[in-house]
Amino acid sequence: MPPDRPDFHGMSLHAEIRTLGDQALAASRLMINLSSRRKNAILAAMAQELSDRRAEIQAANVLDIAAAQTAGLAAAMVDRLTLTTARIDAMIQGVREVAALPDPVGKRLSKSVRPNGLVIEKRRVPIGVVAIIYESRPNVTADAAVLCIKSSNAVILRGGKEAFYSNQAIAAALAEGGQKAGLPLHAVQLIATTDRDAVRHLVQMDDRVDVVIPRGGESLIRAVVEQSRVPVLKHYKGVCHVFVDQAADLDMALQIIENAKCQRPGTCNAAETLLVHAAIAPAFLPRLAEMCVRRQVEVRADEASRQIVPAFLAASEEDWYAEYLELILAVRIVPDLAAAMAHINRYGSRHSDAIVTQDERHAKQFLQEVDSAAVFVNASTRLHDGYEFGLGAEMGISTDKLHARGPMGLEELTTYKYLVRGTGQVRK
Amino acid sequence: MPPDRPDFHGMSLHAEIRTLGDQALAASRLMINLSSRRKNAILAAMAQELSDRRAEIQAANVLDIAAAQTAGLAAAMVDRLTLTTARIDAMIQGVREVAALPDPVGKRLSKSVRPNGLVIEKRRVPIGVVAIIYESRPNVTADAAVLCIKSSNAVILRGGKEAFYSNQAIAAALAEGGQKAGLPLHAVQLIATTDRDAVRHLVQMDDRVDVVIPRGGESLIRAVVEQSRVPVLKHYKGVCHVFVDQAADLDMALQIIENAKCQRPGTCNAAETLLVHAAIAPAFLPRLAEMCVRRQVEVRADEASRQIVPAFLAASEEDWYAEYLELILAVRIVPDLAAAMAHINRYGSRHSDAIVTQDERHAKQFLQEVDSAAVFVNASTRLHDGYEFGLGAEMGISTDKLHARGPMGLEELTTYKYLVRGTGQVRK
Repeated sequence: MPPDRPDFHGMSLHAEIRTLGDQALAASRLMINLSSRRKNAILAAMAQELSDRRAEIQAANVLDIAAAQTAGLAAAMVDRLTLTTARIDAMIQGVREVAALPDPVGKRLSKSVRPNGLVIEKRRVPIGVVAIIYESRPNVTADAAVLCIKSSNAVILRGGKEAFYSNQAIAAALAEGGQKAGLPLHAVQLIATTDRDAVRHLVQMDDRVDVVIPRGGESLIRAVVEQSRVPVLKHYKGVCHVFVDQAADLDMALQIIENAKCQRPGTCNAAETLLVHAAIAPAFLPRLAEMCVRRQVEVRADEASRQIVPAFLAASEEDWYAEYLELILAVRIVPDLAAAMAHINRYGSRHSDAIVTQDERHAKQFLQEVDSAAVFVNASTRLHDGYEFGLGAEMGISTDKLHARGPMGLEELTTYKYLVRGTGQVRK
Repeated sequence: MPPDRPDFHGMSLHAEIRTLGDQALAASRLMINLSSRRKNAILAAMAQELSDRRAEIQAANVLDIAAAQTAGLAAAMVDRLTLTTARIDAMIQGVREVAALPDPVGKRLSKSVRPNGLVIEKRRVPIGVVAIIYESRPNVTADAAVLCIKSSNAVILRGGKEAFYSNQAIAAALAEGGQKAGLPLHAVQLIATTDRDAVRHLVQMDDRVDVVIPRGGESLIRAVVEQSRVPVLKHYKGVCHVFVDQAADLDMALQIIENAKCQRPGTCNAAETLLVHAAIAPAFLPRLAEMCVRRQVEVRADEASRQIVPAFLAASEEDWYAEYLELILAVRIVPDLAAAMAHINRYGSRHSDAIVTQDERHAKQFLQEVDSAAVFVNASTRLHDGYEFGLGAEMGISTDKLHARGPMGLEELTTYKYLVRGTGQVRK
């Protein structure tokens, strides 16, 4: 395993993190003046440097893999950690795709001329300093950093200890490659210690860090929110629902729940609970059971459902709150739309919820009253995604209501300010 | 003084506050379905009820004034607390003005059709439950509540103990008046205890409260941020600057600094520090000194300024950080634009900062590089205001960068969600 504090020079950890913050703040002030063309050249140079340093990055990755195997990590974890040639290719391709996205910075959001002649513009500007705290997969180092750079922010990265050496190799390639094309020094920094206190110092530094984005399991995110004085953009979990209404097309319903549950069950927008209108349950649940057997999905159902399909296991109250992230589906019969929405608003996580219905009035009511970041009619919850929405690469999905809700892409990494021009106007 | 916990029924304070949260959440779900016409009728009924209950409100206010005098509060504090007939008129007029503002809820922010036929709309929706924590002036009870209702949010109010009885009388009029016109029960609630722990319970209730807006002194706001698990919209203080550039029109500069400092020195957008380009300081500072004598402004200046005007007092390092909120002005000579911006970005509070210049290049650079919510060229910082910006009534000014920056009006009390319609689309 990596040393706890390999890279610092006798400073206290607190002082070390504050120094990173000072450096990031200084870099962020320089980032403001970078043109789109300059930023795209920087991203191209980053991609080139990643490509040139493949051997170095893979050698660092071997160190992490060896440490993971020594520590007895599960094979699936080791697999996620591993940077194959194809994954490095994809990471480099991802950098190039972000370069190709439109630049959100500088865009005019509104302009008005007041009766006293004052000209007021509202324009998109970078947030400033973004801190990203993440676990496991080392490619996040590149994915997250380039979104921050493209939106003219400085970034402080804090990766998981399993990918310690890989993250350092990737971050060094990004920073040094970027600098060859004019990236300010310290615009991309990685915290080079696995000491857990570093996170606390980072997220309490509200005079230097403007936003914290944690990516990972619920316990990581709760710990960050608990400690942070800086605003946090996040989702805790994705307890996503599909409601099959009385007026549903049952073939469509079956395809949607199969996709929402099975297409990639470990993701936050996969469905965890299926709600079924009582009137169509006798027709629908046997077909669901067949699909679940075929796709090896374990079903945990309420008593009413088990009377229709006795092979379903019994659900407990905890199942309605559960984010399984695997091939398990909770199933419940509800008497009507109102009961379905009440279930979702009570047990859900405000992430992605869908209704399958041919009843336009029900569709409208569901869209209006379900309080989630994305609400779907006759489509899979798995479609809640920056690419699927046409927004491009994203930093994750937010279930917060402030600033960013849903996919967090380039626009969500900006803020705005008011630019006011006068000719001597004063307040009367 | 009011009793610590007058209105509860043997529940623990924690349980009491959670009950308010449950009730607010339930009300917020009903608020989603109110039409603009219904909300305007509710606001009209609130205004009418405030008018009908003048005698009751003023009687409650007399109790607060008596308590304040017994407690020996300063005359200025007692004055701020007092609800004269004119102030009640203004409060009622304020409610009617909010009714006349456009409804932000439901507005479509974007719409796209994806290659797979998915139709994706992004629409403004209410945030949900808003908590407002404020001090002193009782009219804030009405001002804040009606902005929340107009934007279809439920609100939990927590006023200062000095206005305890006045706030209760106003909140009761709003809630009961509103209900006559169809406002859901518990959409407007006031915490009827002065126990300080109530605030802690309120701001840690992140499963029921979506945003906290504290209004008051810096210590109140820091305490809220320290304790909160709910996102907070705020400004700590307003350390606003005017920079008089070498190429300034000195008559204009003098008018702007006089207005920014003196027009209402107790406000967050009043100027606290004047920066003067070294090249025009010998011409400008004597004129400034004359104005400051005439307007009774105390000047605390750096050594270079005092060599030009020896009557200026000496500034210390603390003066550059100070939010005086009274007729005191810090003055410093700077060698150039870069030094002025470095001073502002170092000592400022990212609130409102102005340059006075005829140099278009300098104006652009100042607008771009000064990292404040509103940046002014040739205009007074006092103009940073929802009404002056043409946005209507506001909840205050935010110096945060996430969600709301600058005036917090009706739009800033909304969020958005994605409404997605398909015909059976799934993720490939």
